[in-house]
Amino acid sequence: MDFEVLNGLLRPKSVAVIGASNTPGKIGYLAVKNLIDCNYPGRVYPINPKEAKIQGLPAYPSVLDVPGEIDVAMLIVPAARTIAVTEECGRKGVKGLIVVASGYSEIGRKDLEDELVATARRYGMRLLGPNIVGIMCNSDKCNASFGPFMPLPGKAAMISQSGALLIAMTVASYVRNVGFDKMISVGNMADVNFGDLVEWLDQDAQTTCITIYVEGFQNGRRFLEIARRAHKPIVALKSGVSAHGAAAAASHTGAMAGKGKVYDAALQQAGVVRASDLNNLFDRTLALSLQPPMAGSNLMIISNGGGVGVLAADAAERYGIPLRFAPDDLQAALRAYVPEIGSVKNPADLTGMGGWPEYLATVKTALQHPWVHGLVVLFCETQRNDPMDIASAIKRAVDESGVTDKPIAVSFIGGAEAERAMKWLVENGLPTYGAPDIAVNAIAALHEYAQMHGIGRDGEPVTEEFTPYCDVDADAARAIIAQARATGRVYLSEIESKKVFAAYGLPVAVTELAKTEDEAVQLAETMGYPVVLKIMSPDILHKSDAGGVKINLRSAEDVRAAYRAILASARAYKPDARIEGVAVQQMAPSGTEVILGSINDPTFGPTVMFGLGGIFIEILKDVTFRVAPISAEHALAMLADIQGAPLLAGARGEAPRDRIALAEALSRYSQMIMDLGDEIAESDANPVLVYAEGHGSKVVDARIILR
Amino acid sequence: MDFEVLNGLLRPKSVAVIGASNTPGKIGYLAVKNLIDCNYPGRVYPINPKEAKIQGLPAYPSVLDVPGEIDVAMLIVPAARTIAVTEECGRKGVKGLIVVASGYSEIGRKDLEDELVATARRYGMRLLGPNIVGIMCNSDKCNASFGPFMPLPGKAAMISQSGALLIAMTVASYVRNVGFDKMISVGNMADVNFGDLVEWLDQDAQTTCITIYVEGFQNGRRFLEIARRAHKPIVALKSGVSAHGAAAAASHTGAMAGKGKVYDAALQQAGVVRASDLNNLFDRTLALSLQPPMAGSNLMIISNGGGVGVLAADAAERYGIPLRFAPDDLQAALRAYVPEIGSVKNPADLTGMGGWPEYLATVKTALQHPWVHGLVVLFCETQRNDPMDIASAIKRAVDESGVTDKPIAVSFIGGAEAERAMKWLVENGLPTYGAPDIAVNAIAALHEYAQMHGIGRDGEPVTEEFTPYCDVDADAARAIIAQARATGRVYLSEIESKKVFAAYGLPVAVTELAKTEDEAVQLAETMGYPVVLKIMSPDILHKSDAGGVKINLRSAEDVRAAYRAILASARAYKPDARIEGVAVQQMAPSGTEVILGSINDPTFGPTVMFGLGGIFIEILKDVTFRVAPISAEHALAMLADIQGAPLLAGARGEAPRDRIALAEALSRYSQMIMDLGDEIAESDANPVLVYAEGHGSKVVDARIILR
Repeated sequence: MDFEVLNGLLRPKSVAVIGASNTPGKIGYLAVKNLIDCNYPGRVYPINPKEAKIQGLPAYPSVLDVPGEIDVAMLIVPAARTIAVTEECGRKGVKGLIVVASGYSEIGRKDLEDELVATARRYGMRLLGPNIVGIMCNSDKCNASFGPFMPLPGKAAMISQSGALLIAMTVASYVRNVGFDKMISVGNMADVNFGDLVEWLDQDAQTTCITIYVEGFQNGRRFLEIARRAHKPIVALKSGVSAHGAAAAASHTGAMAGKGKVYDAALQQAGVVRASDLNNLFDRTLALSLQPPMAGSNLMIISNGGGVGVLAADAAERYGIPLRFAPDDLQAALRAYVPEIGSVKNPADLTGMGGWPEYLATVKTALQHPWVHGLVVLFCETQRNDPMDIASAIKRAVDESGVTDKPIAVSFIGGAEAERAMKWLVENGLPTYGAPDIAVNAIAALHEYAQMHGIGRDGEPVTEEFTPYCDVDADAARAIIAQARATGRVYLSEIESKKVFAAYGLPVAVTELAKTEDEAVQLAETMGYPVVLKIMSPDILHKSDAGGVKINLRSAEDVRAAYRAILASARAYKPDARIEGVAVQQMAPSGTEVILGSINDPTFGPTVMFGLGGIFIEILKDVTFRVAPISAEHALAMLADIQGAPLLAGARGEAPRDRIALAEALSRYSQMIMDLGDEIAESDANPVLVYAEGHGSKVVDARIILR
Repeated sequence: MDFEVLNGLLRPKSVAVIGASNTPGKIGYLAVKNLIDCNYPGRVYPINPKEAKIQGLPAYPSVLDVPGEIDVAMLIVPAARTIAVTEECGRKGVKGLIVVASGYSEIGRKDLEDELVATARRYGMRLLGPNIVGIMCNSDKCNASFGPFMPLPGKAAMISQSGALLIAMTVASYVRNVGFDKMISVGNMADVNFGDLVEWLDQDAQTTCITIYVEGFQNGRRFLEIARRAHKPIVALKSGVSAHGAAAAASHTGAMAGKGKVYDAALQQAGVVRASDLNNLFDRTLALSLQPPMAGSNLMIISNGGGVGVLAADAAERYGIPLRFAPDDLQAALRAYVPEIGSVKNPADLTGMGGWPEYLATVKTALQHPWVHGLVVLFCETQRNDPMDIASAIKRAVDESGVTDKPIAVSFIGGAEAERAMKWLVENGLPTYGAPDIAVNAIAALHEYAQMHGIGRDGEPVTEEFTPYCDVDADAARAIIAQARATGRVYLSEIESKKVFAAYGLPVAVTELAKTEDEAVQLAETMGYPVVLKIMSPDILHKSDAGGVKINLRSAEDVRAAYRAILASARAYKPDARIEGVAVQQMAPSGTEVILGSINDPTFGPTVMFGLGGIFIEILKDVTFRVAPISAEHALAMLADIQGAPLLAGARGEAPRDRIALAEALSRYSQMIMDLGDEIAESDANPVLVYAEGHGSKVVDARIILR
């Protein structure tokens, strides 16, 4: 990324408004008016060939007529005219374009959009949009958008793919008490996209948290790489995860992925904190923008009412940081300030008698105690206390504690006075909410962030690097694929698929094709009994249904009988089926059935799926995804992600399964679909049998569908 | 319930404040002040032996000195004095007591509380509390509490077990725009409890929705019966559902129940709408108090931004009312008001161009269309529209549509002007929220309510009656239990347990005790082969671990060999085990394993559990509960409640299981634990084998633990 070029686009020192207008209500009018109203300190150049002045500023017929330098041009002209205007900007030496104009890919005119980008690139200009509201920046006093209001000042930066939501959020930020330094509308993302903006915001001194409303990424994988390297928390709300209106998925693994699962996995891999809905996005933004990560799992809660304390404890369990009782010395220290009928266990309950001195003392004591990793302070407005006194006490406790590396979140329930105190707390850097569970959810965001980034003792980073395996034979795999393509096929047979898996070091059950009964016996003798025979036909997908599988064959006679039976059944099942022969396979000992699958996700590319076989996948759809590639260490963590995970850990008195071997297979598989991402559309190894620890796993059946 | 007596307590025409004070800040001061400040039209009698006047009102040494009648006395004196004061109230003919005083069962003085109730009862007085804030009623202008503010007027009534939360909510109701006519604090519920209050509020003309914050019911079963019969929606938040601080559960079924599952099931059975957290309680209250039930599942969404429309669609799926596309004629009708780049499918997207005329036309059109069962209207504040214009248009559309039997919920995202418009909408009967998903959740509450109460075409009531089975032999069951008790046991053997199950018509595998090898053979010959032999010893709980089970015995020789082997293994396993003999059982053909269990829940009494066997219960804890008894029809619905339900429906190519037979078994089981609720603490039938449709089920093992 060229930081300076984006600086020019996003922190311009001068703005030309092409299509500036004197007609109130027009977007070209609003853009100029907003730049004036926000006291923008840079130069504003209205461009309009028909007017001498626009809203009191001298206007120019074209950017080429502007005397000074232009950092950014806002394009507010019909889409058809934007190419010519862009040419002029290029010639003028404009650094960046904010293309407010619409009428491009969003209505099917991708051609116009491509031409626009190509023109801008020719002159080295970056381009935000088209089809956007614009950009806003409080610290630069710059509202280069048609949104009439700047958001409440704060430390977060929002990138929104919805213009309507961005405009609505500018005003909503005041009533929600969540402040933003910047709001950036991305629209069609023809050039500058989420990845670019995150990279830039990560270096921006005014931003402490990057907030994303995303409908879909342009280049998901690049975004993930950037997000993974970012030093600031990113929180994202992905919309469009319901099945409503989605096209039916073409494949099994595709169907399992649905619309949200791969996004969710990808964002988690990138260390992005996820939000469940719009309020949650802003609630989490507030905490992430104001407070440090929670570097451990010991959450302390202090309240003045048993009821809200219990609600907070319920929420803590729901949001992944279940409460523990405070250690004895902390309980003893708190007891000095808590009446006998109150509690010091956790939640600490100051009772309705608790006033500002008790809040001051207990908050300070808890924050300073080494056991505490994070603190939630709850207050129910009572007739005894002025909410502002409680707010001041909390703030004073934080300051006097000297602790700056532990997060704190606050909840007040009350009326207008409580609202004022809450606003004051937020202004003083303490995220404050209107319900106990929301404060707990907000601190859970700081805990999730710490966990994903390996901050603190409990965390284990998920953002580690992948080191490719060297002992793989990509050429052999590609040769098998080329051979299949040469016969006009877009899929590999079971035998071919297994060879590709084997080329990447996955443990496959040896399988060979027999075209005659004698060949079958010969193969079986070479492999050793027992063996399995399976029909090989491009026209028979469900081999078992066609009577095309015979297992546990222990002698030459068994093999001959099975061979004949299979052919007879297959012919009866589908008389016109093309039969290539019968696969002879080593019979694998029985083990725990798991499934590895892959898809080539339209956003994130090669993506692996893991699940347990049988009812776990068929009934429970108990599967988990990761964008490839993943290290064996990461794969091991992935194995614990499914509901059925205890089965691999050795539930029901069985020996634990060889998760180390399975994780390596999964990691190798992820490398395989990544290396061959240009060839493989989808694949699976189903089933893979996993044995007791130290005994590995075995791919028993496999399938690859080419792009 | 005596409606009139509770009327006297909850809508008093005169109030005596015992412990009234002239000292600001004291509760006895606040109580009098609040009655004066709220313009209470009834008589207020301060009682204080030391003062002639309290806050300008004539004071009396005792209620006995008061010249007029007293409906209610508020007791604000030390707990120890309340008995004497209650005596005086009784002699005076006071109708009800609001016992604000604390110092009773909440600090271990249950004795004092019992005496208080006994005293009140002797005089026919009902008693609210002790340990409460009091009651508030907007329509009666009565604030008989120490909470300084009355809530925002509205149509809901709130009953709260947390006093701090109640006081905080009075003021919070204004900032949250949710109105209440009444707020009632219940405290220790020594006399009047949730059930009484729901019954009374159900007849109260000012109440349209009953809102409950509950930590625990006193008599859960009575509450359920009352809630089930209520004609108004009830919405409840149950706090204290996290495992934090819970005692370890004593039994398997008990452990599965956790702290929230039985409550959740019970409230669902009672047709109570549940809330997930505090905001959700108030958001749902607002919708339930203002709008009719949603009598079907077709939800239409109208928005002015694609982004919020998609967020609403996501929420609709999450909250159980996934969107469907609008029918063609509705799409065509909407098209007249929606620009080409907008959508009419559902969500309908008016785009940023949508103004009040488009909202007016589309809301009216959608409401009037027979396909639509409920409507969510979303608005993002834009520079083009005054939020108040949009609000007026929505209200006008509702009025002009003439439709009153379909619910509507609204979401505005915006600033202070949007907030004012939202407040106006709520005042005009339209529940309005600050985020699209919250509006969807609110309408989902109206859908859940309709579903639970069988309102509309999609609904099937869950609140049907249970008709006991006549062909049961309770005497036989009790005789078996008595026999076991006579030997000093508090559990039944497998054979005894099965006899009890059989007495209630459950299909058990015939099982008899053999004390010798010859007896075993004789029993096997009578039952017919194959049989199973199991060790019978009070000291061996895990029979298989002790080598105490032999299956599939097909001849007399098999039985003899097995008999000897079992005894040998059992003696080796536990040399001092008391061995009663060996159970001989018909071997049941293999089938799908399920588990029926029961607990005697401390709140709701006899409660059944159902789950699939094996990994479903052990790994996934995939079980569901119902308070007993339940009809076979209800049990059938219960079978569909678990994740593994497709297995019973015939997944994976298997024939559907005999769910009708299983449901009857479950229903009979529920009657059994209900009838014998005074005897049975816990029980289970594990496994029960379920066969293909028409082939019934079989209880293979059973266990009963006595109280």
